Amino acid sequence: MGNNIKLKHGDGGKDTNSLIKEIFYKHFNNNLLINSLDASVFEINQGRLAFTTDSFVVKPLFFSGGDIGKLAVCGTINDLVVSGAKPLYLSCGFIIEEGFSIDLLKKVADSMAEVCRETGVQIITGDTKVVEKGSVDGLFINTSGIGEVHGGYEQKPIKVGDKIIVTGGIGEHGTTIAIERYQMKVKGNLKSDCMPLNKVTEKIGKYMNNIKLMKDLTRGGLATGLNEIAEFAGMGIHLLETCIPIKKEVVAVNQLLGLDPLYMACEGRMVLVVNQKVCERVLEEIQQCDGCEDSAIIGSFVNSGIQPIVFMETFIGGKRIIGPLEGEMLPRIC
Amino acid sequence: MGNNIKLKHGDGGKDTNSLIKEIFYKHFNNNLLINSLDASVFEINQGRLAFTTDSFVVKPLFFSGGDIGKLAVCGTINDLVVSGAKPLYLSCGFIIEEGFSIDLLKKVADSMAEVCRETGVQIITGDTKVVEKGSVDGLFINTSGIGEVHGGYEQKPIKVGDKIIVTGGIGEHGTTIAIERYQMKVKGNLKSDCMPLNKVTEKIGKYMNNIKLMKDLTRGGLATGLNEIAEFAGMGIHLLETCIPIKKEVVAVNQLLGLDPLYMACEGRMVLVVNQKVCERVLEEIQQCDGCEDSAIIGSFVNSGIQPIVFMETFIGGKRIIGPLEGEMLPRIC
Repeated sequence: MGNNIKLKHGDGGKDTNSLIKEIFYKHFNNNLLINSLDASVFEINQGRLAFTTDSFVVKPLFFSGGDIGKLAVCGTINDLVVSGAKPLYLSCGFIIEEGFSIDLLKKVADSMAEVCRETGVQIITGDTKVVEKGSVDGLFINTSGIGEVHGGYEQKPIKVGDKIIVTGGIGEHGTTIAIERYQMKVKGNLKSDCMPLNKVTEKIGKYMNNIKLMKDLTRGGLATGLNEIAEFAGMGIHLLETCIPIKKEVVAVNQLLGLDPLYMACEGRMVLVVNQKVCERVLEEIQQCDGCEDSAIIGSFVNSGIQPIVFMETFIGGKRIIGPLEGEMLPRIC
Repeated sequence: MGNNIKLKHGDGGKDTNSLIKEIFYKHFNNNLLINSLDASVFEINQGRLAFTTDSFVVKPLFFSGGDIGKLAVCGTINDLVVSGAKPLYLSCGFIIEEGFSIDLLKKVADSMAEVCRETGVQIITGDTKVVEKGSVDGLFINTSGIGEVHGGYEQKPIKVGDKIIVTGGIGEHGTTIAIERYQMKVKGNLKSDCMPLNKVTEKIGKYMNNIKLMKDLTRGGLATGLNEIAEFAGMGIHLLETCIPIKKEVVAVNQLLGLDPLYMACEGRMVLVVNQKVCERVLEEIQQCDGCEDSAIIGSFVNSGIQPIVFMETFIGGKRIIGPLEGEMLPRIC
C-alpha cells in the first residue's frame, strides 16, 4: 500500500477497498461491518433509540492521554450515555489529506478499536474520503452513534435544591491541547481527561429515577454546559468554587494563557442533576469508577427570577456570574 | 451574525448556538432536533434497522443539478434505500472553513431541507465545527442515516440468468463535476443525476421477493459497482454495451477528457439484480418513476469460472473486460 495515503485511496475503487480491508476491517473487526454493502443491518428491540453525531478536527491529532480516534469514539459514546442510552453501534467517516501517513492512520484506528473493546461498542459502517494536499488539515473524523435507551432514564423536571455532580477534574482536555499547541514546558503529567463514560451510568443504574438530567462537557467546558442546562431548566444554578475539582496544573496553565478553566473543554466528564435526597449516595458510587475519583457535588439549582443564570460563590465569598462562552476560545479542541 | 463564518461559530458557546438556531433549526425544523440535548431519542418498532454514513467533500460545492447539501442527503438516503430500508432519520455534521459565506451555508441547508421534505426524512441530530482558513476547503458534510428495513427485502443468492437493471443514464454526476471543474464549454444541459431513490423501491414494493440485490452507484460508477456485486455473488456479469443508457453529452465529454463513462460517478442511480421472470415488469414500474425514464436491463449473471469477472459485449460484437476502478479518477466527486 505504500506509506502514505494517495488520492486513489479515496476514489471508491480497488485502492479504497484495500485500504478499508487492511486497516478498518482489521481493526474494527466485526461481522456487521464486514458483511455490509451500503449500510449495516441489525436487529433491534422495540423501544427508544438515541442517535447522535460529532465531527472531530482536533489539532494536534495526537496528545497526552489520547488522539483523534479515541476522542471520536469516546465523544459519541458519551453523547449516547448522557442521553440515558447503552451505546451499541457507531459509524465512522474519515476525511484524509493526501500524503497522510498510513502508519498514523493505523494508530488512530487502533485507538478507536481499543475504546470499542472496552465499551462493547461496534463500528459497523464507515466511509473514507481522500482530498488533495492542503484541502484538509491531516485527518478529520466523524462518528455517529446509536444506543438503546434504558427504561429507567428520561429527563425529568428540575426543582430548587436539586444537586449538580461533576464526574472529575475540569478543563484537563482543553488545557492539555493548549500545552501541546503552544509547546509549553509544564511540570507534572497533565493529560486529557478523554474517556468513555458508560461505566458511570451503569454504576448508578439503580438511581436513575433520581437522575434528572445528564450532560457531557465538551467544547465550552463546565460553564457552557451548565448554562445550557440552566436555560433548559429555566432556573438558576448556584456553584461553589471551592467544590469544583480542578488540578493545580490546569489552574496554572490557564493563568499563564489568560484563559478560564471553567470554559476549557473536557472530553471525559459529565454533569448530573440529581435529587438532593440521594446525591451523596450517587456521588459515592461515581467516585468508585476508574477516572472519576475526584467527582464532586459542585452546586445546586436555585430560583433566579426571570433569567436562568449561573453564578458562582467564589472562595473569598464573592459572587460571579458565569455566562456561556462568548467570543473565541481555543479553536479545534475536539 | 455577520456575513461570514468565524471561528467562534464553532467553539460550542453562544455563537455556535445562534448559528444552529438561525440556520439549522430553521431549515431542518422538527421537534426531535430542537428538543435534543446531546442525542435525539425516538421510538422504534422491533425489527431490522439499517445504519450508514458518508462524508461529502465535493468540489465545486454547487454544480448543475445540485450542491453538496442535496448530495449529502440523497447519498445517505440512497444507501439506506438499496439496503431495503425506509429512510427515517439523518444526522448531519458540518465542518466549515473560517470565512465561509453564511448565505451559502443557508443555501446548502435549504437544499438539504428540500430533499428531506420530498422524502419524509428528518435530520434529528447535528454537529458544527469551524476550522481556520486553509484547514479545510470550504465545507465538508457528513450525513449518517437510520432506516427501517421492510419485511419484504433481503439479499438473496444470485443465480445464472438473473438480470441487471440500471435506473437511468450513467456517469452524469461525475461528468457534470468534470465540466465545472475544468470549466469546459459544453452544449446541451447536462446536469448531475443526484436524486433520492426512495420512490423507486416504493414503486416496486410488490416485487421485493424477486429483487436479489440493490446497490447505488457512486464513486467508481457503474463498472466499480458491478465489480463489487460480481465479487459479492462470486459470479460473472455479462453486459450489453448497446443496452447501457448513456447520454451523448456524457460520451462526448469523457472522450475529450480521455475518461471512461463506465467509471464516472452517479449520485441518483442504482442497479438491481432481478429474477429474470419478472424483470420486464420491474423495469416498466421503475421507468414510471420521475428521473428513471431511461432505466434499462443492461446485462445478466453468467458462470465465469473461478473469477467473478465483469465483461461487456461491445456494440461491434467484441468483448471487453470491465475491471474495478484502478488508479486515479477525478478526486472529490462527492
